[in-house]
Amino acid sequence: MSVQKKVLLAFSGGLDTSYCVKYLSETCGMEVHTAIVNTGGFSAQELSQIEERAYALGAATHTTLDETKALYNQCLRYLVFGNVLKNNTYPLSVSAERVFQARAIAQLAKTMNVDCVAHGSTGAGNDQVRFDVVFHTLIPNVEIITPIRDNKLSREEEIEFLNSCGVEGDWTKALYSINQGIWGTTIGGKETLTSHLPLPEKAYPTRATATEERVITLHFERGEFVGINGEMLAHPTEAIQALTKLADEFAIGRDMHIGDTIIGIKGRVAFTAGAPLLIIKAHHALEKHTLTKWQLNLKDQLALWYGQLLHEGQFAEPALRSIEAFFEQSQQTVHGEVHVRLAPYRFSIEGISSPNDLMNSTFGKYGEMNNTWSGKDVEGYSRIAANQALIYHAVNGGNHDSR
Amino acid sequence: MSVQKKVLLAFSGGLDTSYCVKYLSETCGMEVHTAIVNTGGFSAQELSQIEERAYALGAATHTTLDETKALYNQCLRYLVFGNVLKNNTYPLSVSAERVFQARAIAQLAKTMNVDCVAHGSTGAGNDQVRFDVVFHTLIPNVEIITPIRDNKLSREEEIEFLNSCGVEGDWTKALYSINQGIWGTTIGGKETLTSHLPLPEKAYPTRATATEERVITLHFERGEFVGINGEMLAHPTEAIQALTKLADEFAIGRDMHIGDTIIGIKGRVAFTAGAPLLIIKAHHALEKHTLTKWQLNLKDQLALWYGQLLHEGQFAEPALRSIEAFFEQSQQTVHGEVHVRLAPYRFSIEGISSPNDLMNSTFGKYGEMNNTWSGKDVEGYSRIAANQALIYHAVNGGNHDSR
Amino acid sequence: MSVQKKVLLAFSGGLDTSYCVKYLSETCGMEVHTAIVNTGGFSAQELSQIEERAYALGAATHTTLDETKALYNQCLRYLVFGNVLKNNTYPLSVSAERVFQARAIAQLAKTMNVDCVAHGSTGAGNDQVRFDVVFHTLIPNVEIITPIRDNKLSREEEIEFLNSCGVEGDWTKALYSINQGIWGTTIGGKETLTSHLPLPEKAYPTRATATEERVITLHFERGEFVGINGEMLAHPTEAIQALTKLADEFAIGRDMHIGDTIIGIKGRVAFTAGAPLLIIKAHHALEKHTLTKWQLNLKDQLALWYGQLLHEGQFAEPALRSIEAFFEQSQQTVHGEVHVRLAPYRFSIEGISSPNDLMNSTFGKYGEMNNTWSGKDVEGYSRIAANQALIYHAVNGGNHDSR
Amino acid sequence: MSVQKKVLLAFSGGLDTSYCVKYLSETCGMEVHTAIVNTGGFSAQELSQIEERAYALGAATHTTLDETKALYNQCLRYLVFGNVLKNNTYPLSVSAERVFQARAIAQLAKTMNVDCVAHGSTGAGNDQVRFDVVFHTLIPNVEIITPIRDNKLSREEEIEFLNSCGVEGDWTKALYSINQGIWGTTIGGKETLTSHLPLPEKAYPTRATATEERVITLHFERGEFVGINGEMLAHPTEAIQALTKLADEFAIGRDMHIGDTIIGIKGRVAFTAGAPLLIIKAHHALEKHTLTKWQLNLKDQLALWYGQLLHEGQFAEPALRSIEAFFEQSQQTVHGEVHVRLAPYRFSIEGISSPNDLMNSTFGKYGEMNNTWSGKDVEGYSRIAANQALIYHAVNGGNHDSR
Repeated sequence: MSVQKKVLLAFSGGLDTSYCVKYLSETCGMEVHTAIVNTGGFSAQELSQIEERAYALGAATHTTLDETKALYNQCLRYLVFGNVLKNNTYPLSVSAERVFQARAIAQLAKTMNVDCVAHGSTGAGNDQVRFDVVFHTLIPNVEIITPIRDNKLSREEEIEFLNSCGVEGDWTKALYSINQGIWGTTIGGKETLTSHLPLPEKAYPTRATATEERVITLHFERGEFVGINGEMLAHPTEAIQALTKLADEFAIGRDMHIGDTIIGIKGRVAFTAGAPLLIIKAHHALEKHTLTKWQLNLKDQLALWYGQLLHEGQFAEPALRSIEAFFEQSQQTVHGEVHVRLAPYRFSIEGISSPNDLMNSTFGKYGEMNNTWSGKDVEGYSRIAANQALIYHAVNGGNHDSR
Repeated sequence: MSVQKKVLLAFSGGLDTSYCVKYLSETCGMEVHTAIVNTGGFSAQELSQIEERAYALGAATHTTLDETKALYNQCLRYLVFGNVLKNNTYPLSVSAERVFQARAIAQLAKTMNVDCVAHGSTGAGNDQVRFDVVFHTLIPNVEIITPIRDNKLSREEEIEFLNSCGVEGDWTKALYSINQGIWGTTIGGKETLTSHLPLPEKAYPTRATATEERVITLHFERGEFVGINGEMLAHPTEAIQALTKLADEFAIGRDMHIGDTIIGIKGRVAFTAGAPLLIIKAHHALEKHTLTKWQLNLKDQLALWYGQLLHEGQFAEPALRSIEAFFEQSQQTVHGEVHVRLAPYRFSIEGISSPNDLMNSTFGKYGEMNNTWSGKDVEGYSRIAANQALIYHAVNGGNHDSR
Repeated sequence: MSVQKKVLLAFSGGLDTSYCVKYLSETCGMEVHTAIVNTGGFSAQELSQIEERAYALGAATHTTLDETKALYNQCLRYLVFGNVLKNNTYPLSVSAERVFQARAIAQLAKTMNVDCVAHGSTGAGNDQVRFDVVFHTLIPNVEIITPIRDNKLSREEEIEFLNSCGVEGDWTKALYSINQGIWGTTIGGKETLTSHLPLPEKAYPTRATATEERVITLHFERGEFVGINGEMLAHPTEAIQALTKLADEFAIGRDMHIGDTIIGIKGRVAFTAGAPLLIIKAHHALEKHTLTKWQLNLKDQLALWYGQLLHEGQFAEPALRSIEAFFEQSQQTVHGEVHVRLAPYRFSIEGISSPNDLMNSTFGKYGEMNNTWSGKDVEGYSRIAANQALIYHAVNGGNHDSR
Repeated sequence: MSVQKKVLLAFSGGLDTSYCVKYLSETCGMEVHTAIVNTGGFSAQELSQIEERAYALGAATHTTLDETKALYNQCLRYLVFGNVLKNNTYPLSVSAERVFQARAIAQLAKTMNVDCVAHGSTGAGNDQVRFDVVFHTLIPNVEIITPIRDNKLSREEEIEFLNSCGVEGDWTKALYSINQGIWGTTIGGKETLTSHLPLPEKAYPTRATATEERVITLHFERGEFVGINGEMLAHPTEAIQALTKLADEFAIGRDMHIGDTIIGIKGRVAFTAGAPLLIIKAHHALEKHTLTKWQLNLKDQLALWYGQLLHEGQFAEPALRSIEAFFEQSQQTVHGEVHVRLAPYRFSIEGISSPNDLMNSTFGKYGEMNNTWSGKDVEGYSRIAANQALIYHAVNGGNHDSR
């Protein structure tokens, strides 16, 4: 007598993963367990509806996990330290949360001792690779099943199959697919499948309600965003959530990103990520006051690769741990307050206040007064600093400095 | 009988360089020649007033040079190719033009066969080093005189001396020092000497006049910005100037920058650089559609050093020529149009149209359809891509992927 | 009536590709065409034997291509310009030649209008990916067949099949697999499957015959190695071959390399690459005399990625073209002679002579005499150069410079 | 009545610093205190002779400090972690020790509450900047006196002055200046002032005595070299010293380096640094077995800047602390033994043994067997890995992959 296989499915309640529940149980004859991992994008009510739906579809068990703090503690704080924006644009909202969702699912799969894990990815996105890579790394002996990708199914085929299983539902495709988490909301739709169209206002889940400009203060300790306007929050995730609310009132943080997918094609998305953008720009301003040029330069170089590897699902790559150690060490003087002006659809950094500010008039005032060095010192500096190019051109003759 | 020394002074018509004319002629007994180098920031009328002033102060000759096109051809185009913003903020407006002013002065000094060159820099800014370094490299045998820096003079001392020479004038310090050129306007004032205060609206030389949003199209050929809204300009400098006018109507491109001066202190400035920011952001959007991830990554790394070296006056460093060769080669497919929405104080990139767009549905549609590869291919990809981290953690045991 | 498919097989005459001929013709019923691409490792006699063997096995046609000069012109010269050694050890001998072999096969496949291409790679090496990636890029519509990899065949199974086809031959496995090309010889064997054993002397294809040390001069023009001991060769490939002969007399250039394969496992090889190592070390010495520190630093950074991408079969990645443009531009002053002492199993760079040498006593003598600057200049330089760290530590207090 | 100024002089017992003692006391009328900082290059007997000499010249006090362990703990271990060789050649022997000597002198100057510090540097070397920069950073309020540099003195003038002060001595210039420390011996002489001459055998302080080859085992723990041939030493400095003795028997580690001095000229030195080279090459081999490709790549990039900044005396730059944190984190799996064959004038790495070796046949055998993935997986990998270049060339047409 053959034993029924146990499968753990990453379940979101949408068409694709609903199909998967039925396909895995009915067609494959498996015992289907579902799980959803919240990374700050679901309300308690939404999570409860998703649970109901899982059981209605016949899930043997359904598990709700919250990874929001783990996501922050192990990843988002380093994205802040590194001011990481993919291609100087996108805060890697989905990239980061998907990896942590996959890790939580893998951990649960181990605990539940399942035979297989399943995800509802198509064959044309980044998430399939993120799920696969995390699963291969953390649970190499568990089989991965991806019904939508394997069968290259259309929405119509999925709906037909669900109907044939007696599952009803309004599967009308939402005009826009929306992925929400603590580090921003990412949106796809018919415009993002073109190169030239912007996302229409109506596609964004929030509306600007503020009409007056407002100056707020963001507090940082050792590089972490810990409070707003004098109020320190218990955990940075709470500060991020409070800032998100504020940013959404101003519709701050909207943009579009065209990126290199892991699978080699270009992928375009719209996003609204007010808190991540405000935090990163404010943090960067504070760093520009408190770090040296070499700290800033090398952080920039490493941030590029941190973002790249995270984006590609390579969070388990040990080199990321070394970059994190670099970032963390660099933040020991990144304390202070950043003053930010919010206006509808935009913001500007007004300035910072920090006990570690390297702009310090004891030594000199830019353009005005040199206190701890003399004009002669700079003359000497300039002469020596010019030496190598001078020798290069003198030795090589001609005007080698223009091509 | 001693021969009177000839000195060439970089002259702007302000207090410092006016002092220098008198000091060099009266106190040092030199034959003073003045020159001003326009890099796009002076009108014909201003240049003519500066010339008058030079002769009024007793200059033996006064020369007006225009280096705007040279600045673009030899430098600004590479700043666009590299999307170079110092610390991801400042388009290096002054850095670039000052180097080209110094080079033109050096060239003129050679032609005029002067004994000395002079500049009016203080001992606390970047410009002193840029002038010095360029002069040391290009005219190593010509003496450099810097009266303000050498004597650490106060404004009051300068005014008193000028009065004693019979020079009258309204030397009331302008509340803000403004440096204007084709690549932006940089502003200093009492707020920029603090870390926390923003520049007040009134300190900016232009006012937002547009009230309606407007979508414009920027045209790029091989990475160069060549036209607006279907109109191709004769030279990119003309396109930049036309775009500056447009940007100024919307007060686009204002920000503050705190930077690492060459002399080691932090220096804060405000700036308004609508055209540079619009061009760089639009160009970057176009590149994100037309270049591969490795092209984008490596360009980012080199851009960091290009900006750093240019900022520090090291334009003669031959490594910059190699970076330029890299940048130029990378631009061969960066053609197309970028659609930009202008609104008061902000802009957003709406999208691009390009024959070289790598987002191409023949191959696949992000998140939706894979045409030229299968789900199985991605499964294989993921398994191999996970291999090294998998082996690392399997060999080293434990949970090495969190610190 | 079905048409017989045409397949082009990359053929080396060994067991694996001999199997492929028979498998493709007998089992798959294809019309099998074979081709071998010489990149400097085969003699005319060997090529002729391979051709005979191909026809004996039943190849419809056999083509011999020589890509040695193309390999040099389009790749090896940049490896010299960049001083590229993978992990500072391995001259990428196989990586470079395999890519060019694959490209030549792809080109021939296009010309011959075949339906399929085949290669005899196993599933555990780098070459399978190099062949695949080049084929996918250059001939995306041609099917790739890899009989050994697909069927995970053992040697015994291959031999049995060949015997069953009436093919006889001494298939005794050579103790060492040897891959020879103009850029070095790479060797695998039972020791390279361990981490701790060196390759025994007998496994190397050549023996040290020289007993006396000898000083030779290598000539470089714009970074290219063009002659030895005053004799300029018609093409750099000839110079490399002449130097290989010399190096082999001294058994110079032997080492072992443990590398990261494209597929994620570690792979260990032994190699003997006298000419590449002599050329790269000599070229680097010349560059250290003729380039500035920034040129040297940035070249090192780019070389890392050039080596990495070439190693992984990504020669078609357009970023490599940009790196090549950087490298080429940087070589305009890399002229001169490098004096090298050869001794059995080792060599040392004795010195260089170059008209572009930046070590030039007109300006100063290291440690002894400063001609074009003063002690005061260096005092000033030091004070300014210390400024930022001084301010950082003064502002942040304590002893922040030790962890 | 004016108070006599107290000066602390970095004293080595040679002509230059002997001159300084007399000049500072006799000519400047200062109270001269001397100090010597041992970084592993002086024997107890030598230190005692130097002390005698200091008192004979009239030093008020003489202090002997040993910074060998501090040098290792705070710097050399990171040079090993980073495999740092300046320009892939020189282990930064002098650069590292000079900074630590300057730091110890600065610390002593603070403790002794002196008015001035003095060093005997000329105006044409690196050491002047290293001393200056460290002094400016750590004791910004203490005056720096550099009699030789200030007065641009010749040896003859120094000797004449010393004679006039009644100081006798054999000041015959040693043919070669030798700087010895735990991290290697650096040598200058008439050949190093040329570009083409090697250092003659006799100029090296040691002679090869070994005639037989010998295989030794080096032990590493978390990246640190801790023992030889099964014997673990109490501190890595002892292991280094033991290895130095062994390396010197084989005359291993000799080479010449032409470097970019801090002051812009090229400077050439010879060196013998057997232990540093053996340790770094062995450590690198071990890392190649135990680290991932991304760890190796990023370490290489950071090592470049670590070496550069250390070389230029910028050890107080806080970015170095962040690089150290990166390096240290990366070493957690760098354990094991490296087997090295020593032969007269050369060595080779034979292999390694490590519990953390990523070359592990459970997963696969390079080129032979794939256990945890299939040929199909690699096919998929290759197809996806080729995707972006394929699309780039398909979109852009023509043969864009050759320039």
